[in-house]
Amino acid sequence: MVGGSGYTGAELLRLLSGHPEIEVVHVTADTNAGARIADLFPSLAPVVGEERFAPFAVADLTGLDLVFTALPHGASQLLIPEMLERVAHVVDLGADFRLPADVYERWYGERHAAPELVDRFAYGMVELYRDEIGGREHIAVPGCYPTAVSIALAPLVADRSVELRGLVANAMSGVSGAGRTLKTTSLFSEANENVSAYGLLTHRHTAEMEQALSKVARRDVEVLFTPHLVPTTRGILATCYARPATPGLSTARLLEHYREFYANDPCVVVVDEPSGTKATYGANVVHVTVRFDARTDTVLAIAAEDNLTKGASGQAIQAANLVLGLPETTGLPLVGVAP
Amino acid sequence: MVGGSGYTGAELLRLLSGHPEIEVVHVTADTNAGARIADLFPSLAPVVGEERFAPFAVADLTGLDLVFTALPHGASQLLIPEMLERVAHVVDLGADFRLPADVYERWYGERHAAPELVDRFAYGMVELYRDEIGGREHIAVPGCYPTAVSIALAPLVADRSVELRGLVANAMSGVSGAGRTLKTTSLFSEANENVSAYGLLTHRHTAEMEQALSKVARRDVEVLFTPHLVPTTRGILATCYARPATPGLSTARLLEHYREFYANDPCVVVVDEPSGTKATYGANVVHVTVRFDARTDTVLAIAAEDNLTKGASGQAIQAANLVLGLPETTGLPLVGVAP
Amino acid sequence: MVGGSGYTGAELLRLLSGHPEIEVVHVTADTNAGARIADLFPSLAPVVGEERFAPFAVADLTGLDLVFTALPHGASQLLIPEMLERVAHVVDLGADFRLPADVYERWYGERHAAPELVDRFAYGMVELYRDEIGGREHIAVPGCYPTAVSIALAPLVADRSVELRGLVANAMSGVSGAGRTLKTTSLFSEANENVSAYGLLTHRHTAEMEQALSKVARRDVEVLFTPHLVPTTRGILATCYARPATPGLSTARLLEHYREFYANDPCVVVVDEPSGTKATYGANVVHVTVRFDARTDTVLAIAAEDNLTKGASGQAIQAANLVLGLPETTGLPLVGVAP
Amino acid sequence: MVGGSGYTGAELLRLLSGHPEIEVVHVTADTNAGARIADLFPSLAPVVGEERFAPFAVADLTGLDLVFTALPHGASQLLIPEMLERVAHVVDLGADFRLPADVYERWYGERHAAPELVDRFAYGMVELYRDEIGGREHIAVPGCYPTAVSIALAPLVADRSVELRGLVANAMSGVSGAGRTLKTTSLFSEANENVSAYGLLTHRHTAEMEQALSKVARRDVEVLFTPHLVPTTRGILATCYARPATPGLSTARLLEHYREFYANDPCVVVVDEPSGTKATYGANVVHVTVRFDARTDTVLAIAAEDNLTKGASGQAIQAANLVLGLPETTGLPLVGVAP
Repeated sequence: MVGGSGYTGAELLRLLSGHPEIEVVHVTADTNAGARIADLFPSLAPVVGEERFAPFAVADLTGLDLVFTALPHGASQLLIPEMLERVAHVVDLGADFRLPADVYERWYGERHAAPELVDRFAYGMVELYRDEIGGREHIAVPGCYPTAVSIALAPLVADRSVELRGLVANAMSGVSGAGRTLKTTSLFSEANENVSAYGLLTHRHTAEMEQALSKVARRDVEVLFTPHLVPTTRGILATCYARPATPGLSTARLLEHYREFYANDPCVVVVDEPSGTKATYGANVVHVTVRFDARTDTVLAIAAEDNLTKGASGQAIQAANLVLGLPETTGLPLVGVAP
Repeated sequence: MVGGSGYTGAELLRLLSGHPEIEVVHVTADTNAGARIADLFPSLAPVVGEERFAPFAVADLTGLDLVFTALPHGASQLLIPEMLERVAHVVDLGADFRLPADVYERWYGERHAAPELVDRFAYGMVELYRDEIGGREHIAVPGCYPTAVSIALAPLVADRSVELRGLVANAMSGVSGAGRTLKTTSLFSEANENVSAYGLLTHRHTAEMEQALSKVARRDVEVLFTPHLVPTTRGILATCYARPATPGLSTARLLEHYREFYANDPCVVVVDEPSGTKATYGANVVHVTVRFDARTDTVLAIAAEDNLTKGASGQAIQAANLVLGLPETTGLPLVGVAP
Repeated sequence: MVGGSGYTGAELLRLLSGHPEIEVVHVTADTNAGARIADLFPSLAPVVGEERFAPFAVADLTGLDLVFTALPHGASQLLIPEMLERVAHVVDLGADFRLPADVYERWYGERHAAPELVDRFAYGMVELYRDEIGGREHIAVPGCYPTAVSIALAPLVADRSVELRGLVANAMSGVSGAGRTLKTTSLFSEANENVSAYGLLTHRHTAEMEQALSKVARRDVEVLFTPHLVPTTRGILATCYARPATPGLSTARLLEHYREFYANDPCVVVVDEPSGTKATYGANVVHVTVRFDARTDTVLAIAAEDNLTKGASGQAIQAANLVLGLPETTGLPLVGVAP
Repeated sequence: MVGGSGYTGAELLRLLSGHPEIEVVHVTADTNAGARIADLFPSLAPVVGEERFAPFAVADLTGLDLVFTALPHGASQLLIPEMLERVAHVVDLGADFRLPADVYERWYGERHAAPELVDRFAYGMVELYRDEIGGREHIAVPGCYPTAVSIALAPLVADRSVELRGLVANAMSGVSGAGRTLKTTSLFSEANENVSAYGLLTHRHTAEMEQALSKVARRDVEVLFTPHLVPTTRGILATCYARPATPGLSTARLLEHYREFYANDPCVVVVDEPSGTKATYGANVVHVTVRFDARTDTVLAIAAEDNLTKGASGQAIQAANLVLGLPETTGLPLVGVAP
């Protein structure tokens, strides 16, 4: 694992400690290289003992079956090119290989250092990209928000029961989504007893949502995405609004449609009443529900997930399982830690 | 004060303890009658001493200048009729006199016991109903959500710069909005580390929002309202979406329009960047901002408030100040307790 | 499982969903009998499907290998007597069979209905009672606070390096320790942004701590226990103070002593720096550390655990594993869900 | 005000916005000089308008009646010497002038730059140092923990009803006590759902507690202080343990003694049942209670306060009021913002 000292790294180590088929043999960190893993993450003490973060050296990875990379965006595209020759599979949790290079450059405002490699990565949202994942060696793990929003809206755009323009994705995330980086807005005293909107109109995850939903719809889909910060550590709730494109919608029929759409997806649970995020705490699962409001002629779809598990490290393992030929839920809890 | 043992009652007592012109002479409670106020609310110990909640007896109110009633909906309409003959002004924090009786009956699903009295109450949202408040003796204090949503959207519907149908009000509230009543969803272990949607499509506050905005627009306005429960004690953030009805919108022009619209409202602050709810903690203030997204042709308006202060007890005092001929901010803090 | 609709019941179902050797075949509830399990605990939706809580009927338990009972204190002693003839092992999470009947009656202030059965139960704190657990058929699972406090202090009293009188156990617990019962102090708006002491001088768990530590010391041990409520859902931190009874103590020697004392206990981790409770979130583990302060001649021992896991349902499974002849950590996570 | 961009600075500005006799004319910041105050602290928007933090220049302070300094420890002793010639009163919220220089140097591990000035500062804990405050020009505002602990224990050591050695102060603080500085332990995702002990045996506030209590006892008092971090923004709860030095103690007599001891202190409320910290939220008040446990022969004293108000900025204003000849509670709320 490369970049194991952030929250997604810690979550990977937690989940992999219970994975029967994947053995963690090497964990690197950048500024934390040399530190005891258990000093940074005491929760891991029972399994990591005295193990320390190694400095990154590409040679150390040679011959590994699979490498998870959990790096800030921009960093993966610099380190990954030489990895690809040495390891069978790279599962990258960063943003660098999720989008075509030109789209990446537009939303991230910087040139892509390895545009020619993007095509070797499948977008690791298993439910919507299972076909692609089977055919590529490497995985770009989706962002946390796009996972919740795409799973909430995919059944609606798949059969074009809603307009593909003017979709609204209003989402709330726990603070761990901002990572372990030191910034004022992530301080407890700032985030606690506080709810705030941020990244208005321009949040980069918009591009991923539009890409995933456009693939499902086989046409361009347009999403206005508004993220909010709420005082939880984990959890994303996405409440999405769409205008019907076909007559005769009803909540009952939509729920039935969702159940069929996700019938073969063990990590998606379609629920009658909207689940809170806590139902998914620490679990690799999305709970989703849907409503049709005849009064205002609007469709409402709501998804809950844990941003660090299904929204990041759990989903990474789910995709890695497929790449390794394992059942997709191998080693992954589906029951949230609640209350 | 009638019904002082709930959260809005406690907040009234807190705010009135610093009010230079209103003296609290009598506080009643129902099941808590006889209890020391400081036992229920230790925060009030420095000002209430050994004072106890009195049982309700209408005769005890005779001759008072003003009575605040903080009762569950349905209860006010039973107790208030005989009060009206005995006190100069009633300021009711419940839902019973906010809506015309027929609208009340449709949304609350029960007959109104005193429909002939509704017209004697002004809707106490000072910013939008200042004219009415001047002319009536009694006040129906608005609900917490309608305050935030109406203040967020009023400038947009006032000049019809947006479509009046299909407005979306997506709001998040702290748990105190559910009051001190014992219910499972209000337990700490259920609400903490949790975000959930509730009351989908049918929340009763919808009627108030539509009423207030229709008054401002002088036409029928339609709102789809989705409330969410977030793990804060106080605070409502309303993120609202509208479709433009006029060309040439821009964020700069909208912000300017909001500043003009609220130029004479000391309890509304128009901010460039969206404030979090914590900026309003314990204060009688709404922070509001607005955006135009040219990419998706959508207008976004965001308001933050404290549901117990500007959303309830503070607003009650703000309206009471007007009724008593005082400056509207008398005794009301505008600076939030932050961090 | 009898009494599966409280928090310890839900935690048992979560943990058992990943247990390779225990299959849950029957779950009862009292007032919630007939309800879908997933409606009460949406987190369990992926594993319980449409399953409902059954009403309690002792006949339904006949022939089971093991029954977990998670009932309010007082209730177990009424239901368990007839169970004992029908099932091989009862693992009771309540307080009824933890103490000798006379001690129970003194601290709980009520007569014990089945005093003759107490001796058939071993106290299920595996680390200190492993010998007893091997020799009895039934288990009384320790309380949450006694687990943390006893594990913190046991090494000190075992070799009498501290005075056995005047021990102070100052502990903080998350709100889930009060269960799913509706009470005002468990409301989010009361518990959030609040820290308070309660149960001063007389908390019933004192008796368990003194019993467990007296067994280890083979002499009477006296503890002053002060619990506090802190705004977390899960987690107990016990900070304990003792006066040295022997010269020559040092932090280094004490840490070494603790490591030896718990060398064969996979669910206890002795750490150099004090872990926070979050390191144990959802895990069946206690983190413990110790200090000697030469300046004030005091020994300090600190333990962290999850009150619902190691403090209740996880510990129940740990003891059940022993009773069933399985390795004690079978099916139990040791890594906390952090951050 | 010098150093207004931290949390104690923001709290000063909030409290002073409601102070009838103190007008804020100048606010400086260091790294935030030039920033709009309302950008850092949106809660202050209604009162600061477009005002910006000024860079520090001692000349700008010349002639002011009173300057509050809210600087990191070590910084005050560098800036204050030249201020003392230019302003009538300095009220310093840092640690630099609270202790005799030699004690400061021992606990803070660094030389004091202005030891000759320490005597010109009174220790600003009004309840225990009212006499000194009257006679000196400048104030060193006590630390947050020493305020709670000293007020909890002072009545016990004043009449030597307890042993002066072996006092234990076990305290819990909200995260704002660590200030607005960026550090990992202050991140929401680290602090939330977490309780942890820190600063074991050596926390610097120990010296202040011992100094204040020794003054009251007129003999050396020794305290073992253990601070804990709990997931609240504000609030300190100190639970203190002492051994009786006199026979015949009882809870009733101790409560009576506390009531007499604090009879003339409007900012101390002696309560029968222990208040939680929330009762003091945003208020300049300490709630305190006491117990005698005959079973273990121990005295227990518990104090609750808001670390930013009575524990810092409120207490600063309380002392400033005295220095300015105003009633000590001028402009200070005593009712906590609860729930």
